[in-house]
Amino acid sequence: MTGADMRRLSLNQATVNRLSLGEAVDLCVRHEIPAIGLWRERVAETGLAGAVKTVRAAGLDVSSLCRGGFFTHADAGARGAAIADNRAAITEAAELGAGTLVLVSGGLVPGTRDLPLARRMIADAIGELVPVARAAGVRLAIEALHPVFAADRCVITRLGEALDLALEFPADAVGVVVDTYHVWWDAALFADIARAGERIAGYQVCDWILPLPADTLLGRGHVGDGYIDFPPITAAVMAAGYAGYIEVEIFSEAVWTAPPDETATTIRKRFPLAF
Amino acid sequence: MTGADMRRLSLNQATVNRLSLGEAVDLCVRHEIPAIGLWRERVAETGLAGAVKTVRAAGLDVSSLCRGGFFTHADAGARGAAIADNRAAITEAAELGAGTLVLVSGGLVPGTRDLPLARRMIADAIGELVPVARAAGVRLAIEALHPVFAADRCVITRLGEALDLALEFPADAVGVVVDTYHVWWDAALFADIARAGERIAGYQVCDWILPLPADTLLGRGHVGDGYIDFPPITAAVMAAGYAGYIEVEIFSEAVWTAPPDETATTIRKRFPLAF
Repeated sequence: MTGADMRRLSLNQATVNRLSLGEAVDLCVRHEIPAIGLWRERVAETGLAGAVKTVRAAGLDVSSLCRGGFFTHADAGARGAAIADNRAAITEAAELGAGTLVLVSGGLVPGTRDLPLARRMIADAIGELVPVARAAGVRLAIEALHPVFAADRCVITRLGEALDLALEFPADAVGVVVDTYHVWWDAALFADIARAGERIAGYQVCDWILPLPADTLLGRGHVGDGYIDFPPITAAVMAAGYAGYIEVEIFSEAVWTAPPDETATTIRKRFPLAF
Repeated sequence: MTGADMRRLSLNQATVNRLSLGEAVDLCVRHEIPAIGLWRERVAETGLAGAVKTVRAAGLDVSSLCRGGFFTHADAGARGAAIADNRAAITEAAELGAGTLVLVSGGLVPGTRDLPLARRMIADAIGELVPVARAAGVRLAIEALHPVFAADRCVITRLGEALDLALEFPADAVGVVVDTYHVWWDAALFADIARAGERIAGYQVCDWILPLPADTLLGRGHVGDGYIDFPPITAAVMAAGYAGYIEVEIFSEAVWTAPPDETATTIRKRFPLAF
């Protein structure tokens, strides 16, 4: 626990998803959390200009914007709309001073079982967005999601796969997110973290708990509540050269219904367990 | 669908888990299913000698015995008991004429979050069982389970990982099982199937369906009901040289409560979709 650096803590807004952007920002200030990971829905609700003003006035860094992606569609119209939406997301990230736009790439193309098709569609979409991202000074961060979400949310299921895709593009434009919840089980994780090096554009922590709830999206816990051995993963991410914020991102009905100040207190208390 | 060979169909007993061994054998005979994958609990219920007699009298092949494994324990006594139980399973497999004993290796060691420890414990246990398996003429088949089960059932989560472990031991003693349900999402699947070659000791099919039920163990469907693209996987397994039975193994409350003859009819009807 000696290595914990509270200055690297960021609250991902999804952890307190009942709060408005302004309320989440106030929570960070109250609990001396120096950064926040924002979600587009909440930014839109506040308005982009208002959101920018709110986080700047509070003196918070924006560690990431969540999220772009969902590139896998059966018809060209929907694919085009996804690209347009991602262009907007890049603009928002730039305005908010978020260097990183997190991408959840999308599941199988509706009506198909064709994983390679979905993967090609994702690669094509990212290729189209790269010049936009570079021009805006925003890095696209491909997130590998746990294979439990492969069919419906993200066919990119391992850090190594996200990295291989990122490596097709310039390092300043495309990186990867390491989210402990999604990748902790992978025997190749440490090799892939080392291989990722400067491609690591974000690091998110939350724990794997059991039993999974009916909505498997929500089976996450505070650091220390579950099965993940965080310190070696954090050490590997740091050793790979990642110097950015560590976001605590927890999708959990129990966390969402807890008083937000209690959640923030728990996050601060548990953060050192990640080191 | 031209490549389907009904002579390669095997019914894994777990698919009709409300039936006794004798009832499951009768079902296979009634539906011209030439082989069965047996479960130890049902064998024990019938008695080993009686089970051997029943399957032989019916003229069925035994495609596998399920299952050995669960090697990850905190104390030496429990580890020793697991080895003893696996020795017994090897003897049973030999008596039943099942060339293959399927291994579900075990999750995290209770009280720890140490994946490498669990993996070492599994490798050690298999090493201890190899001479027993060779002497009995039974092949240990390491099964990679979907990462959703990594914490509590099996830390070996990818075919490639199962294969790397199998490769530490002689090919006649240790192979791998390819179960579509567990590995379909893996971008390295086809490379790992090709690499596995003669190490493939079993091939099981069932589909990935959504939403997952509350008990994630039971979220499986008949071939064709879900998201898995079977034909390329089956083709790859065949191309790798696998010439054995294809087991239909479905853990599903809906399948379990269906009339067994209806289940067997569906299995035969859907089997060609796997080719």
